[in-house]
Amino acid sequence: MPSPLKATDLQDILGFTIQLARKAGALMLEGSYAIQRAGAGSIGEKKNAVDLVTEYDIKVEELVRSEIARTYPHFQFIGEESYSSGTRPPLTDMPTFCVDPIDGTTNFVHGFPYACVSLGLIDQRVPVLGVIYNPFLEHLYTGVRGAGSFLHTRTPAAPNGQCGGTDRLPLAPARPLPGLASALIAVEWGSDRAQEPIRCKADSFARLAGAPPRGVMAHSLRSVGSAALNFALVAQGALDMYWCIGCWPWDVCAGIVIAQEAGAFVTGSKDAPHDGIVTEAVLTGRRYLVIRGVAGTPEESSLDVQKRIARDFYDTVEDIPLDE
Amino acid sequence: MPSPLKATDLQDILGFTIQLARKAGALMLEGSYAIQRAGAGSIGEKKNAVDLVTEYDIKVEELVRSEIARTYPHFQFIGEESYSSGTRPPLTDMPTFCVDPIDGTTNFVHGFPYACVSLGLIDQRVPVLGVIYNPFLEHLYTGVRGAGSFLHTRTPAAPNGQCGGTDRLPLAPARPLPGLASALIAVEWGSDRAQEPIRCKADSFARLAGAPPRGVMAHSLRSVGSAALNFALVAQGALDMYWCIGCWPWDVCAGIVIAQEAGAFVTGSKDAPHDGIVTEAVLTGRRYLVIRGVAGTPEESSLDVQKRIARDFYDTVEDIPLDE
Repeated sequence: MPSPLKATDLQDILGFTIQLARKAGALMLEGSYAIQRAGAGSIGEKKNAVDLVTEYDIKVEELVRSEIARTYPHFQFIGEESYSSGTRPPLTDMPTFCVDPIDGTTNFVHGFPYACVSLGLIDQRVPVLGVIYNPFLEHLYTGVRGAGSFLHTRTPAAPNGQCGGTDRLPLAPARPLPGLASALIAVEWGSDRAQEPIRCKADSFARLAGAPPRGVMAHSLRSVGSAALNFALVAQGALDMYWCIGCWPWDVCAGIVIAQEAGAFVTGSKDAPHDGIVTEAVLTGRRYLVIRGVAGTPEESSLDVQKRIARDFYDTVEDIPLDE
Repeated sequence: MPSPLKATDLQDILGFTIQLARKAGALMLEGSYAIQRAGAGSIGEKKNAVDLVTEYDIKVEELVRSEIARTYPHFQFIGEESYSSGTRPPLTDMPTFCVDPIDGTTNFVHGFPYACVSLGLIDQRVPVLGVIYNPFLEHLYTGVRGAGSFLHTRTPAAPNGQCGGTDRLPLAPARPLPGLASALIAVEWGSDRAQEPIRCKADSFARLAGAPPRGVMAHSLRSVGSAALNFALVAQGALDMYWCIGCWPWDVCAGIVIAQEAGAFVTGSKDAPHDGIVTEAVLTGRRYLVIRGVAGTPEESSLDVQKRIARDFYDTVEDIPLDE
């Protein structure tokens, strides 16, 4: 059994991963505009938009894979490709990069500014490091187990104002979250558009948004179209929760570390033990619920609030059938 | 009857309005973080979060109203306050600022980075100038009738890369939009949470997202929670369409100019003549559909494509009852 990575190892890997995310992000931005121009049949674009989507998807993935393989040849790698080949490689105790080169592909194609590269690292079967970079907004999120998570930006998204910089997450101290009625919740329509899952989602969203007695009347629902960035926005404190259905480990691995290090609670499906521990079953379970760090009260600890809200949430929504 | 504003007048007013938007935006950003810190009971915040929401709402509104009144004392003013006083002031031929000091209040309170100040100007009963500023992302959108619309940014949201700047909208040349199935569509859950409108919305969204034969299977649905910024994102080309229900003129006035100047088509409710002309009835009609600039084909002009998509859209969704 390999020995766990040390804190100093993780800091070195973080430096490498940030560099890689910025390189991949620059390529993604170039690709997004090439695709949009090609879609318009612009002069100078020799390829059509569909070819370019495939081309940049592969380009970004190859950049990420090859740089990781060269720098950390003994690390394992999990990505869409490793799963889509049919056999699911077993998760081992080895350090394993768990990567989505382009998360939010629809946004990437349309130029909607919520696409990112999501680079997670698993060690001893637990997510330990995450870097998420959205090149459209120059928002770079980082997290290392035990060392906190951060937003690096060039705009005043962060409270330090002026000209951006690096801010610890969450951006403001953890506020109370009395219940679902106070929550700003991210949900997504996803890629499975069959009648039954869409009906279940629409009914569930209506129950979250609608007034009592049928609904819980959350503050509102948001959909930006990127699982990784939804985790990051929960970590930041901009969203109170995110309900993720049908995602894969590479969509959420980096986000889990960034969110947990910001005090967020991550759990799996309705039937998972809602204890905030991300086991291998949760990581690969394709259903996730993440709740931001909340201030506890003398009567109820922070973790107890998060557990209660997770239970209330799953009592409100339907179970969504998964494709595959 | 007053004479219409000249192009040179509009350029002067634009300069003033941009300055005002940046000032209001800075105040909004300060307010958002003060509210978040107060919500956490942070030391140094003497007021509670609810007081601060009211306080900053009034502060930003007063800044905007007083600067407009001082600089353009003869201009009319339409805002939430002028309507909520009970009597709806009639729209006249006079130049009239139509303003939402904070659009996306829920986002503003939560620190979700899609809140903005929206400053529109109507002349001769037609929207002629718009400035929308999102201080969280430093995205400033401007539009002047007949003179185009622009995004001013400090991040590479725009295709010029590097360090931001000013880019004409849309950011990429107009692409084709074959139909709803190719569209990335913004929809919002809104503030009316009664059972019937929420059911109608959920059913409509499910029909937009769901696969045929029951649905049209749009590329996807997005919800960022700001009407003004949805118009701006359509103008930019990041969204293909936005369906706006229950908004007021001050939510959309600036966005209408910015979108139209980027080639977008703006129309009202299902029964409006879908001719792309924003009459007073459309402006005050509280239902809007905006479709980005699209490339026409030899068989179908750009406007004909937009009209066809508007009809298809209204054939797909239900009519949502409005409160009030």
